[in-house]
Amino acid sequence: LEFRVLGTGSANPQLGVHPSAFVLTIENHLLLIDCGEGTQYQLLKYKIKPTRIKYILISHLHGDHYFGLIGLICSFNLNHRTEPLTVIGPEGLEEIILAQLKYAQSKLSFELTFLLTNPLNTENVLIESTFTVFSFPLKHRIPCTGFLITKTAPPRKVLADLLPANFAPVYYKLLKEGQDVYDELGQKWYKNSEYTQAMGPKTFAYCSDTIFDADLPKYFPNVDLLYHEATFSEEQVDRATFTFHSTAGQAAEIAKMAKAKQLIIGHFSSRYQSYSHFLKESEAIFQPTMLAEEGLNYII
Amino acid sequence: LEFRVLGTGSANPQLGVHPSAFVLTIENHLLLIDCGEGTQYQLLKYKIKPTRIKYILISHLHGDHYFGLIGLICSFNLNHRTEPLTVIGPEGLEEIILAQLKYAQSKLSFELTFLLTNPLNTENVLIESTFTVFSFPLKHRIPCTGFLITKTAPPRKVLADLLPANFAPVYYKLLKEGQDVYDELGQKWYKNSEYTQAMGPKTFAYCSDTIFDADLPKYFPNVDLLYHEATFSEEQVDRATFTFHSTAGQAAEIAKMAKAKQLIIGHFSSRYQSYSHFLKESEAIFQPTMLAEEGLNYII
Repeated sequence: LEFRVLGTGSANPQLGVHPSAFVLTIENHLLLIDCGEGTQYQLLKYKIKPTRIKYILISHLHGDHYFGLIGLICSFNLNHRTEPLTVIGPEGLEEIILAQLKYAQSKLSFELTFLLTNPLNTENVLIESTFTVFSFPLKHRIPCTGFLITKTAPPRKVLADLLPANFAPVYYKLLKEGQDVYDELGQKWYKNSEYTQAMGPKTFAYCSDTIFDADLPKYFPNVDLLYHEATFSEEQVDRATFTFHSTAGQAAEIAKMAKAKQLIIGHFSSRYQSYSHFLKESEAIFQPTMLAEEGLNYII
Repeated sequence: LEFRVLGTGSANPQLGVHPSAFVLTIENHLLLIDCGEGTQYQLLKYKIKPTRIKYILISHLHGDHYFGLIGLICSFNLNHRTEPLTVIGPEGLEEIILAQLKYAQSKLSFELTFLLTNPLNTENVLIESTFTVFSFPLKHRIPCTGFLITKTAPPRKVLADLLPANFAPVYYKLLKEGQDVYDELGQKWYKNSEYTQAMGPKTFAYCSDTIFDADLPKYFPNVDLLYHEATFSEEQVDRATFTFHSTAGQAAEIAKMAKAKQLIIGHFSSRYQSYSHFLKESEAIFQPTMLAEEGLNYII
């Protein structure tokens, strides 16, 4: 599970800073999470093959989170994409995209499916064989959802150190599949529970734009990585509340309450030239905190 | 009259190359012509104050000509713009922009007016005191218009060399205003037609996306500067025709037929790494040709 940051900015455009867009890699699947203006150029810059993106998740319909989507879809089409694409997002997104395609008289070369998120309640919006996407309500100025992405548990890990050196590969495979193994030669039972270890699912939670909301942590207890917006630092807490955004300290509070393993903060207001005080403010409450940095890849 | 290039690319995104967007400066007025994705970042880069833009002209609804418009409008709003904004473009543009504003629950801080272009016939779409915008049909895959922008004639130029050294400033002003002057002291008539010279209007024509169309030159005879797309060079003439685009040589033919003073070509396909052969190809037919270059300002 890898999380790559393509944009750390917020709504006000800033030269050299890009609006929200993130790529989550789950084995062979690439999920694009939010898609601000210029995201397709960020994909080019970081050499992320757009055809590998099969799912796009949009948190809400403020421009810094989706104005790059139509351009990306049109570029997929220009390049004769054939892989189906699923876009998950709020009401209105499909209407807007389809209107733009209609007036461009574009007939897509690939199947485009929209799945609607529910801004009022939790929902399992996508269940795939290796991961699931669960959406939960965020409190912002317009309908907005966060996402919990769970990489489902991989096969059990075989504890090779406990096995004899000449242990047959076919037995090894059976253990990995979760079976007990009887070694006729050695006349010994290898109980799966003793010779393998369960690998837990990995989880990633994404809170794009939200006021501080103590209800949030219940949606992602013990999450492996939490991305939470931190548009402002503490001295602007009133402005954060007024605009339905959060401070770095508030993001840290949410991470702490959720017992997250790690926190990444981003979506910084253009009023700040550096973000070191965001880090300090968050780390005083929750560790480890990381600052989102464009181009960086965070391993979960 | 100044013409500034913000984007020289065409539909396929290319790192470091931007889609169509141009700024025409007419005295204090800034007209933005087309507005591809990322145009607001180009305005920041070239330090063009967005509030000075009062008119935006959109040629057609292919994304590389307008996907940056909604982001620019939203940024105007974020920055509490109060100056009215007029957007001139084809059917569908208003519907798309208003749908995006609706779902963002944006109430604009400024007056936004849409003027509809007619893709089937010529039209005076805007008549201001110092300039006019005339639209004409372009032949592209979807409804598309070109624009002729005329800076109306400035006051007559007084031929100071022909006047006596002690010629009174008040008489000078009268001549500039177009009047004949009687100098009582010298007992002499200064006929306006003999002591002033008319300054012609200045014209700029914009042909964004079009197949080679011999009907075009009649819309902008003797134009001072013609921008004409040149997506391909001559060896791809069939592809140009198939996609309703032009080659550099065809753009030059149009400039020649129109008896243009100067030609700028742009909208280059991403398949080309350099454009020197575009220049050579065009100059063989029409001179002077200039290659559009991002950031450059062309004085008309």
